[in-house]
Parts: sequence; structure tokens; C-alpha cells
Amino acid sequence: MKKNHNKPLEASRFAYDGLDRVIHERARLSVLTSLISHSKGQHFGELKQLCGLTDGNLNRHLTVLEDAKLIVISKGVEHNRPQTTCRITPLGRKRYIEYLAVLEQVILDASSAVHARDPLATRSG
Amino acid sequence: MKKNHNKPLEASRFAYDGLDRVIHERARLSVLTSLISHSKGQHFGELKQLCGLTDGNLNRHLTVLEDAKLIVISKGVEHNRPQTTCRITPLGRKRYIEYLAVLEQVILDASSAVHARDPLATRSG
Repeated sequence: MKKNHNKPLEASRFAYDGLDRVIHERARLSVLTSLISHSKGQHFGELKQLCGLTDGNLNRHLTVLEDAKLIVISKGVEHNRPQTTCRITPLGRKRYIEYLAVLEQVILDASSAVHARDPLATRSG
Repeated sequence: MKKNHNKPLEASRFAYDGLDRVIHERARLSVLTSLISHSKGQHFGELKQLCGLTDGNLNRHLTVLEDAKLIVISKGVEHNRPQTTCRITPLGRKRYIEYLAVLEQVILDASSAVHARDPLATRSG
């Protein structure tokens, strides 16, 4: 890694390493936000509708989340029809809350810039 | 599209369609948050450091942002060395602010769920 020869900068101030890629992807962020709001679980159809996803898309993202152990998927029968239920795990909840803290930092950083134009401007053009 | 035969649900409550994929990608979110905080522009090296990116990665994401007309990239010479400067455009600023409003909604939705466990729980098993 090359050394920095310029004036010292707050290193990686905007890197947001905590924006976990498994959670940050838009569809998975939808799914997890829905599941954390329904901690006893949601049926596949309900989740699909609330997140605005197709069957295929939802299935694909559920697999990623299950592989990461952030959710559990259980299959059963309800009213004589097969029913898939998804739940967030304690690990999923922990990781989501950590992710949320970083997201809040992005909002803080951005809001201060948006609401007070040019406060940190460092270049003259 | 199949009709919904279940109880009415607030349609796509957690879809977050406004999470623009060009902006939402983590590295590009870093770059845009840094650039909106430095509205007169940032040099390539400074941006790279603040966002914790490699030359190749930053170049790749800058191209995506430039193609979407969210930033402009200008090349010049400063102190006899070539210098690349990046700036957010008015369109970039507008789109970023719209994105931020959706991000704030995610935080609101999630925070209420995280801070008050099980308020919307709809499944018993």
C-alpha cells in the first residue's frame, strides 16, 4: 500500500465498511426490514407482496439470507395448503441492528451536508 | 399477476423502490456522500482515501456515476502533476436527496421495530 504524501485526512471517513453486503442489497434490505417488523415470522406470499418481489427473486434472496444464517425458513401445511414461513434469527437481528447503526451514520453525514451547503468544501474549482 | 386472496395488506410497504441502484451500491454511496459533503469537488486521491477504495475500484464506480450524469470528472494539472477532480452535479444532488428520503424511511421502519419488539407480530408459530 502506498503512503499518503498529502495533508493528513480522516482516514476512510466515508468508507462505511459496516454496510454488510448481504444486508445492503435492496431486496434483502426490504426482506429483513419486513421480517424484523414481524419477529414471529411471515408467510412467503405476504413477504413477497410487502417487498414487491416476484417469486423467483424472493426465493433467490431468501436463500442468500438463509445461507448467511440471518433467517430460517420452515415449510408446513396450513388450511391444507403448503405454507412457507420465514423468520429472522437472533444473529440476523444482531447483524441488522449493527447495519442500521452504519446507515444512521450515512444519514447523519449526508444530512449535515445537504442542509448546510458547502460547509466542508475544500476545492476552489 | 395473481390476485391476492388474503387479507388486504399495505401493498409493497417494504419495497423501497426509491433506493436507486446506481446510488445504493456501497462504494458509490460512499463516493456520493463524500462528494455531497465537498460540493466544490474532490481530487481522486482524496476521494480514494476517504472512501477506502483502490484506484481500480474508484475508477470503475466513477465511470458508472459519470455515465448516469450524477458527477462530472475533470482532468487538469496542478503543481506540474496531473490531477483528476470529481464533482457532484445538480442532478446528482437532486437524486441523492431523493435517495436519502427513502433511506430515512428504512431507518424509521426499522427503528420502530427494533426499539419495540414484536409490535406488528402477525404469526403465532
